[in-house]
Amino acid sequence: MFNSFGNILRLTSFGESHGVAIGGVIDGFPAGIEIDFDAVQKELDRRKPGQSKIVTQRKEPDTVEFLSGIFEGKSTGMPIGFVIKNTNQKSKDYSHNTNVYRPSHADYTYDKKYGIRDHRGGGRTSARETANWVVAGALAKQILSQIEINAFTSSVGEIFMNKPYQDLDFSKTESNIVRCPDENSAEAMIAKIQEIRKAGDTIGGTITCVAQNVPVGLGEPIFHKLHAELGKAMLSINAVKGFEFGSGFCGAKMKGSEHNDIFNTDGTTQSNLSGGIQGGVSNGMDIYFRVAFKPVATIMQNQSTINSEGEATEIHGKGRHDPCVVPRAVPIVEALTALVLADFVLMNRTRKA
Amino acid sequence: MFNSFGNILRLTSFGESHGVAIGGVIDGFPAGIEIDFDAVQKELDRRKPGQSKIVTQRKEPDTVEFLSGIFEGKSTGMPIGFVIKNTNQKSKDYSHNTNVYRPSHADYTYDKKYGIRDHRGGGRTSARETANWVVAGALAKQILSQIEINAFTSSVGEIFMNKPYQDLDFSKTESNIVRCPDENSAEAMIAKIQEIRKAGDTIGGTITCVAQNVPVGLGEPIFHKLHAELGKAMLSINAVKGFEFGSGFCGAKMKGSEHNDIFNTDGTTQSNLSGGIQGGVSNGMDIYFRVAFKPVATIMQNQSTINSEGEATEIHGKGRHDPCVVPRAVPIVEALTALVLADFVLMNRTRKA
Amino acid sequence: MFNSFGNILRLTSFGESHGVAIGGVIDGFPAGIEIDFDAVQKELDRRKPGQSKIVTQRKEPDTVEFLSGIFEGKSTGMPIGFVIKNTNQKSKDYSHNTNVYRPSHADYTYDKKYGIRDHRGGGRTSARETANWVVAGALAKQILSQIEINAFTSSVGEIFMNKPYQDLDFSKTESNIVRCPDENSAEAMIAKIQEIRKAGDTIGGTITCVAQNVPVGLGEPIFHKLHAELGKAMLSINAVKGFEFGSGFCGAKMKGSEHNDIFNTDGTTQSNLSGGIQGGVSNGMDIYFRVAFKPVATIMQNQSTINSEGEATEIHGKGRHDPCVVPRAVPIVEALTALVLADFVLMNRTRKA
Amino acid sequence: MFNSFGNILRLTSFGESHGVAIGGVIDGFPAGIEIDFDAVQKELDRRKPGQSKIVTQRKEPDTVEFLSGIFEGKSTGMPIGFVIKNTNQKSKDYSHNTNVYRPSHADYTYDKKYGIRDHRGGGRTSARETANWVVAGALAKQILSQIEINAFTSSVGEIFMNKPYQDLDFSKTESNIVRCPDENSAEAMIAKIQEIRKAGDTIGGTITCVAQNVPVGLGEPIFHKLHAELGKAMLSINAVKGFEFGSGFCGAKMKGSEHNDIFNTDGTTQSNLSGGIQGGVSNGMDIYFRVAFKPVATIMQNQSTINSEGEATEIHGKGRHDPCVVPRAVPIVEALTALVLADFVLMNRTRKA
Repeated sequence: MFNSFGNILRLTSFGESHGVAIGGVIDGFPAGIEIDFDAVQKELDRRKPGQSKIVTQRKEPDTVEFLSGIFEGKSTGMPIGFVIKNTNQKSKDYSHNTNVYRPSHADYTYDKKYGIRDHRGGGRTSARETANWVVAGALAKQILSQIEINAFTSSVGEIFMNKPYQDLDFSKTESNIVRCPDENSAEAMIAKIQEIRKAGDTIGGTITCVAQNVPVGLGEPIFHKLHAELGKAMLSINAVKGFEFGSGFCGAKMKGSEHNDIFNTDGTTQSNLSGGIQGGVSNGMDIYFRVAFKPVATIMQNQSTINSEGEATEIHGKGRHDPCVVPRAVPIVEALTALVLADFVLMNRTRKA
Repeated sequence: MFNSFGNILRLTSFGESHGVAIGGVIDGFPAGIEIDFDAVQKELDRRKPGQSKIVTQRKEPDTVEFLSGIFEGKSTGMPIGFVIKNTNQKSKDYSHNTNVYRPSHADYTYDKKYGIRDHRGGGRTSARETANWVVAGALAKQILSQIEINAFTSSVGEIFMNKPYQDLDFSKTESNIVRCPDENSAEAMIAKIQEIRKAGDTIGGTITCVAQNVPVGLGEPIFHKLHAELGKAMLSINAVKGFEFGSGFCGAKMKGSEHNDIFNTDGTTQSNLSGGIQGGVSNGMDIYFRVAFKPVATIMQNQSTINSEGEATEIHGKGRHDPCVVPRAVPIVEALTALVLADFVLMNRTRKA
Repeated sequence: MFNSFGNILRLTSFGESHGVAIGGVIDGFPAGIEIDFDAVQKELDRRKPGQSKIVTQRKEPDTVEFLSGIFEGKSTGMPIGFVIKNTNQKSKDYSHNTNVYRPSHADYTYDKKYGIRDHRGGGRTSARETANWVVAGALAKQILSQIEINAFTSSVGEIFMNKPYQDLDFSKTESNIVRCPDENSAEAMIAKIQEIRKAGDTIGGTITCVAQNVPVGLGEPIFHKLHAELGKAMLSINAVKGFEFGSGFCGAKMKGSEHNDIFNTDGTTQSNLSGGIQGGVSNGMDIYFRVAFKPVATIMQNQSTINSEGEATEIHGKGRHDPCVVPRAVPIVEALTALVLADFVLMNRTRKA
Repeated sequence: MFNSFGNILRLTSFGESHGVAIGGVIDGFPAGIEIDFDAVQKELDRRKPGQSKIVTQRKEPDTVEFLSGIFEGKSTGMPIGFVIKNTNQKSKDYSHNTNVYRPSHADYTYDKKYGIRDHRGGGRTSARETANWVVAGALAKQILSQIEINAFTSSVGEIFMNKPYQDLDFSKTESNIVRCPDENSAEAMIAKIQEIRKAGDTIGGTITCVAQNVPVGLGEPIFHKLHAELGKAMLSINAVKGFEFGSGFCGAKMKGSEHNDIFNTDGTTQSNLSGGIQGGVSNGMDIYFRVAFKPVATIMQNQSTINSEGEATEIHGKGRHDPCVVPRAVPIVEALTALVLADFVLMNRTRKA
C-alpha cells in the first residue's frame, strides 16, 4: 500500500540513500521478453550523480544486479528482484545534522510521523530511490515496443525553452548536459546553473515529456484515468510541485470554441490541446505534459533552523548536492511514464470480451 | 482496479448519466460515527445542476438514498451502499448524436477502447458521476472533525482573483453563484460567464483549495505521498488539465534561498511555499493547491466532426450544459480532498508500533 | 480492502439482511458481452429461501435490478451496479434478541470489534449477502463460455454420497431438493433433514464442486494460486469450516509413488489426485474440491447464553431458518467458483509478451 | 497482484531456487519496533535443509541480509528489503531434466502458462521461496507481542497423533526432528519417514497450528474473514491440499445442538468448535486449524513421463529432496499465521471512530 506503484505491472521498492543497497521487485512483468540489459544501464547512467559539472559531484556507479525473473536473457513472468548497492555512502557528510531539521526537507515530517528518523542523508526520502524507478522504467519500455517517450528540460529558473516540441530534434537532448534539445536555450540554462552553484544556491525548473505512437485506448476510467496516473507518478518525484498536460493551466483561460480539438476523418485531430488524452483514455495523438520542480532544498549557505528539541540552530549545507535537479530528473520522468504506460497496456488487454 | 478510489477508506462507484441510477459503496468507513445526513444533502445541493443562472439548467434533485452500513444513525463499520436516482434522464437530448463523436469529449476514445459506447449523454464519462464523489466526501468529512477544507473559484478565463487566500473570508464563498469569496472578482467572473453563455460558448477556470488544521503526519511515501494522491484525485475530475500545490509552477522559477521555509521553534514555518507538505507528509501548515479546468467541450455552436463510420458531419450542442464548470466543481474539489485526507488519517493509525 | 473480492474482475458488495436492499458493484467486467439476464435470475432462484420444504420458509423473491454497465443488452466495460431489495424484512422476528449474543453466531465478535451491532437478523453477517455473490457469479459464468461448473451436495450429516463424481449425471442435481445427483443418497439426505428439522435442530454437510473444460494456465503464483483463491472464496461462505481439493486430506496419508499423476503424451494425466491444479496453475484436467459446512447455529431449542451486559439468559430460535445450509449453498459455491475462474482468465491475458 | 501477500503488512517476494538470491520487501511494518535478529535467524534455521536425517541433505545456510527499513536496531516504518543468497545452487542436479515434465510438479503448467520455464530445480515453484515467508513471519511475530503461535506435526502418513492439543507441551515440539510434541507419536513418525526414504519414496502428513492469546476482533468480513485469509495462506504453501479450522470436516457431520459453543458470562465459550473465530472475527478463544500436505512429488524411483515435445520418457529423481515435507513446514505454517494475524492487528486499528 505504501511502497508499491502500478496495478498489474507493479514496482515495490525499498532502500535508503545510506543503507547497504536500494532495490525492488517488479511484479507482473510478462513472460518471454528478451531483456536488453544495456538499455537499463544506459538509463541508470543518465540519472547517476557525477556525470557533469552541473550536477552533484558524488560518484555512484549505480550498477543494477538482477536477482530473479530472468532466465537465459528472457523474462520468465516471475517477479524481477533487483538491487543497486550503495557504494559511496559517506554518512559522515551528514553526521553533523543528526538531530537538526533541514528547512523544506522531510526531516521534520518523518520524525513526527514515524517517531524515528534515519538521518543519514535523508534516508528513504533521498532522490537515490529514483534509481529504482529508472530500472523499472527501463524494463517497462521493453514492453512498449513502438511507443516513443522523450522528456527534456524546458526551463531552468526564468529561462524558458519556448519552441513547440514539434520543432525539436529529440536526438539532441543528450547532446548537452542540461538535456535541452534546443542548443541556444541549453547554453543559457547551463550558464544559469553554474552561476547559481557558485552562489551556493539552487534553482528550480520544468521538464516536458512527450509520448508518441501511443495506441488508442490506454487509461482506465473513472479512477485510473491515464493523465491522473501520469500526474500521480510525476508528483511522486522528489521536488515536484506541479503537473499539467495538454493545454494545462493555459487551457483554463480559454474558450470551448478555441480549445476543442476538431477531428479529421481518420480519427486524428487537427489541434491537440487535449494532450492525447480524452476522458482519461489515450486517443492516439501525442501525449505531452509538463512537470514543475522546485529548487533543491539543500543550499551551501547558512540557514537558521531548529533541532528535534525545538531549539534554534544554524545549518550549512555540506555534502555534494545538485544545484538544479532537472537535468538528472529527465530520465526519471521518462521512466515513470514508461511504467504507467506499460501498466495500462497490460490492463487494456482485459477490457474487452 | 478501475472504479475504486482510496486505500482503506475506499469509494467504488458506478452509474451513467442516463441510466436508472448512479451510486457506490463506501468501504472502510469506521464504526461508531454519528452520521449527519443534512450535511451530505447540503453538499449535493451545492453540486447539483440548475442552482443558478450561470450553470446548466437541467433539474436534478440528487437525493441520496443510503442502503446499508448505517444503523440507528450511526456507522456500523459495514460498507455503506448508496444510490442517487436519475430522475431527469431526457435521453432525447442526445439521441441525435448516436454515432457522432463530439470534439474533445470521450466518445471516440471510449468507442475505440471498449468497442461499444453508451451514447446517452456521455454515459459514464458524464460529470454526473461526481455526485457519487460528493456523497463519499461529505461522509469522509465526518471523520475529519477538526480539519477545515475550503475550495473556491480563483479564476474564470482571464479573470483572476489574485488575493492571497489568507486575506479571504471563506464564509463568503457561498454568498455568490460563482463561489469566489472576493466579491469584486465574483462579479466580474459572473458577468464573464453570462457573456460566454450568450455567445453559445464555454470557458475554463481554476479552483484553489485550502485545508487547514491538518495534523502533522498524513501521507504515505514513497508511492502514496499526500500531494501525489491529491493530484491524482483532482486530475480525476472531468475537464481538469493541471494541478499544483504550494509554490507550484512558480516554484520552478525560484532559488532555494528564496523557496525554503524556515522553521519557527514550534515546528511551524515562517513561509509556506511547501504548501503544508514536505516529503509527501503533512507538516501541520496549511495545505493549498490549485486546479485548472478546461472549458466545457459541449458548445452551442456548429462544429464539424466525424461519426463512427469516419464520415465528416456537423454537430450543434443541444441539451442543457454548463458554460463554465468551475462553480459547480468547488464542492467536488472539497469532497475529493476530504476523501484523500480521511483515507490518510486511517492509514496513519497503522504506522507506529 | 474489506468488502471487495477479486483482482481484475472485482465484486464490491454491501447490505444487511434487514436493511432496505443489498447489492454491489461488479468492476472489471469486459465490454461487449451479451448479458443473459434469465441465467442470472435462475441462479438467484436456486439460492432463494422458501423454494422447498427442507429450507427456510422465508419468502424473498430476490429480484436483481441492474443499474449500470449494461447498454442495449451488452456489457459496456463500465462498473455494473446492482441492488436486490429486501422485501421481507420482518425485523420483529429478531427484536427479542436485541442485546443477546446467539451462540456460535457473530453477534459477540461484531459487537466487540465494531462497538456497535446491527442486531436485526445478523445484519451483514447474514447469508443474505450471498445473493450478491450469486449475481456476480452468474455474470462471471458468461465470461467463461466453455467452462462447466457443477456443485452438488455430497454429504448431509453422516450420510455420504460416495460415488466418484465421474459416475454422476450432473443434470440430475436439480431433480431433487437437496441437490444431490445420486437419487438414493438424495432421498436419504432429505429424510435426514426433515427429521432434524422436526427436532428443532440443524445439521452440517459437504458440497463437492467440479470445474471441467478449464484451460491450462489459470492461477497466479506465488500468492494467488488457483486453489488458494478457491479456498479463500469457499471459506468466505457462511458456516464453512474446511476446504480440500484433489486428494485433499486423504492425500496426506499417501505415498508419492501412489499420489503422482503420470502424464499421457497429450499432457493429460492418467490419474488426477492433483485435482486439476499443479503449482497453483490449472493443468487442463478437472478441478474438483470439497467444502465442509457446519450445522446452522440457530436452532429451535432453548439454549443458555449471555447478553451484552454479560448476564446469563436463555434464547430460543425464532424466525425461519434453514435446518441444513447445504442445498441452498450449492449455487453459491458455483457462483464463487465462476468468479474466481473468470478473474484468472482475465489476469492470464496479461502474463505473456 | 501476483507475488504480494497481505493488505497493510505486505510481503512482496521474489527469487528462484537456483538464481543468485531470493528475497523480498516487507512493506507496512510499523516504525519503532526493536528488531530481534536472532529470532529471525532461529526461524530460518528451523526451516533450513540439512538439519536432520529425515529431511533433505542439501546444505544451505540461509542467512538473511536486511538491506533497509531498520536503523540502529529499530524499524523505521520504511519498507524492509532483504535477500537470502543461494549459496548451494547445484543446478547440475537438474540439468538432465531440462525439457522433461516431472509428474505432479508445476513444470508442465508453468511451461504452458508462461511459454518459458526456468527448469533449474523448479525455479520459482521451489519451496525455497518459503524461506522468504519465514523471514517475514518472524518479523511479524515481533508485532504480536502477546500472541502465541504453535504449529506441530499431527500426522505422517497413517500415523496420527490424536491427543487434543490442550494436552500437549508445545515446548517439546523442537525436542525431536519430526516436530511432534508427543514423544511416542514422534518416534513412530520418524521411523516411518526413514522407512519411506529408504524405499526412495515420499509421504504426506498434516500440521496442526494453534494461536493463543489472540485478542477479540481480528478479521475483516465479508471478504477478508480471519479463517479465509489463514486458509488462503496455508493453501499457498507448496504441497498443501486441504485446510480446516475448528470442527472442520468433522463439523459437517454434526448437529447444531452439539456444535454450538455456549457462552460463559465472561464472553469465553465452554466448548470451542468454532476454532476461535465467529463470523470471520476472532472471539478470543484459541484459534486452531489443520493443514494437509501431499507427499513430495520427487521420488527416487523410475517414473514414466513426457517431455516438452510430448514424447514419452523416463525420469528418476536425483538431487537431495525431502521424503516428507511436514517437519520443515512447521515453521512455515507458523510464519504465515503470524503474517496474517499481524496484518489484521494493523487493519483493526482503522475500524472504529
